[in-house]
Amino acid sequence: MKISARNSLEGVVKTVIKGATTAHVEIELTGGAIVTASITNEAVDDLKLAVGSKAFAVIKSSDVMVAVA
Amino acid sequence: MKISARNSLEGVVKTVIKGATTAHVEIELTGGAIVTASITNEAVDDLKLAVGSKAFAVIKSSDVMVAVA
Amino acid sequence: MKISARNSLEGVVKTVIKGATTAHVEIELTGGAIVTASITNEAVDDLKLAVGSKAFAVIKSSDVMVAVA
Amino acid sequence: MKISARNSLEGVVKTVIKGATTAHVEIELTGGAIVTASITNEAVDDLKLAVGSKAFAVIKSSDVMVAVA
Amino acid sequence: MKISARNSLEGVVKTVIKGATTAHVEIELTGGAIVTASITNEAVDDLKLAVGSKAFAVIKSSDVMVAVA
Amino acid sequence: MKISARNSLEGVVKTVIKGATTAHVEIELTGGAIVTASITNEAVDDLKLAVGSKAFAVIKSSDVMVAVA
Repeated sequence: MKISARNSLEGVVKTVIKGATTAHVEIELTGGAIVTASITNEAVDDLKLAVGSKAFAVIKSSDVMVAVA
Repeated sequence: MKISARNSLEGVVKTVIKGATTAHVEIELTGGAIVTASITNEAVDDLKLAVGSKAFAVIKSSDVMVAVA
Repeated sequence: MKISARNSLEGVVKTVIKGATTAHVEIELTGGAIVTASITNEAVDDLKLAVGSKAFAVIKSSDVMVAVA
Repeated sequence: MKISARNSLEGVVKTVIKGATTAHVEIELTGGAIVTASITNEAVDDLKLAVGSKAFAVIKSSDVMVAVA
Repeated sequence: MKISARNSLEGVVKTVIKGATTAHVEIELTGGAIVTASITNEAVDDLKLAVGSKAFAVIKSSDVMVAVA
Repeated sequence: MKISARNSLEGVVKTVIKGATTAHVEIELTGGAIVTASITNEAVDDLKLAVGSKAFAVIKSSDVMVAVA
């Protein structure tokens, strides 16, 4: 599958914390930065996400803001 | 200002393309990955974004998806 | 690629309108409903989207609202 | 009320799962597809959503991605 | 129509700027603050938005961030 | 830090409700309207949000819809 979302950042799953319905997944990018994703528990199960899994953080461009110091 | 968005990825502005109302800004992260942001032209002016500017890609966790190969 | 976004609605591209930086793509779902996506011109080119292409409208659950009449 | 969101897909509520603060609601569209919405528990109560309720999945165009197989 | 989005802020349209595909609409809230919405040109036409129109800025809770000074 | 998000609405935190992973924070704007934000529990802790805190509701323009009565 190829998706229109312009951002697909490669990394490794560092933590998976499931809540009642919503899970938080941290992905450590190849460059060292950490990206946190808030996704459904069902998605965690469906993708079999676990610490150490290779994964991509996928983000639509219209959801990215820019900040300057 | 400190913001609730969990993701703030440091980098350098690589391209700025203004459209009629919406601009596309590419930020090259420290780790080498490129993040594209779709923001208003006004924000580009207000933040004085230009090629070579230090900048952060800021993303709310609920806007991050996870994909596996 | 398998993605955490829970919604992937199958259909056929009905219209593609490119703007200066942002394109509007209409997908006619199998059930007859029309879904409009606002994506980058680059994504349209990259996915080679054209009228008649088979395509999926992909939506993160946290971006879906519910309304009642 | 008329809203700018371009996508309003008609269906029937199939499941409602409340979490600690966030609920997941599945709507079965007229065409048979299932759409999952992640909304607040308060919204579920406020709209009196229950299995069998007629409902619309409402989505802003800028939150719709496109994928091809 | 009643919608799950928790935020509906009343005001008056102050400016409407159409781009190639995407319009920017400024709404002056009753309390004096200005909210900018980036919506499709089609939505502007469909809702007949014009300077002086009464309008609401509608925002899903999961799209609201919090910042402190 | 200066951010591209066009909307930053000043107010005071009225309620903070933590869930398993996701918190709901209500901000009462200067003009009297209430804005609800759905953010991570971690962000609540990190920003030390509590009832009575001065805070801003920050929203990207592409996440604002417009409605008319």
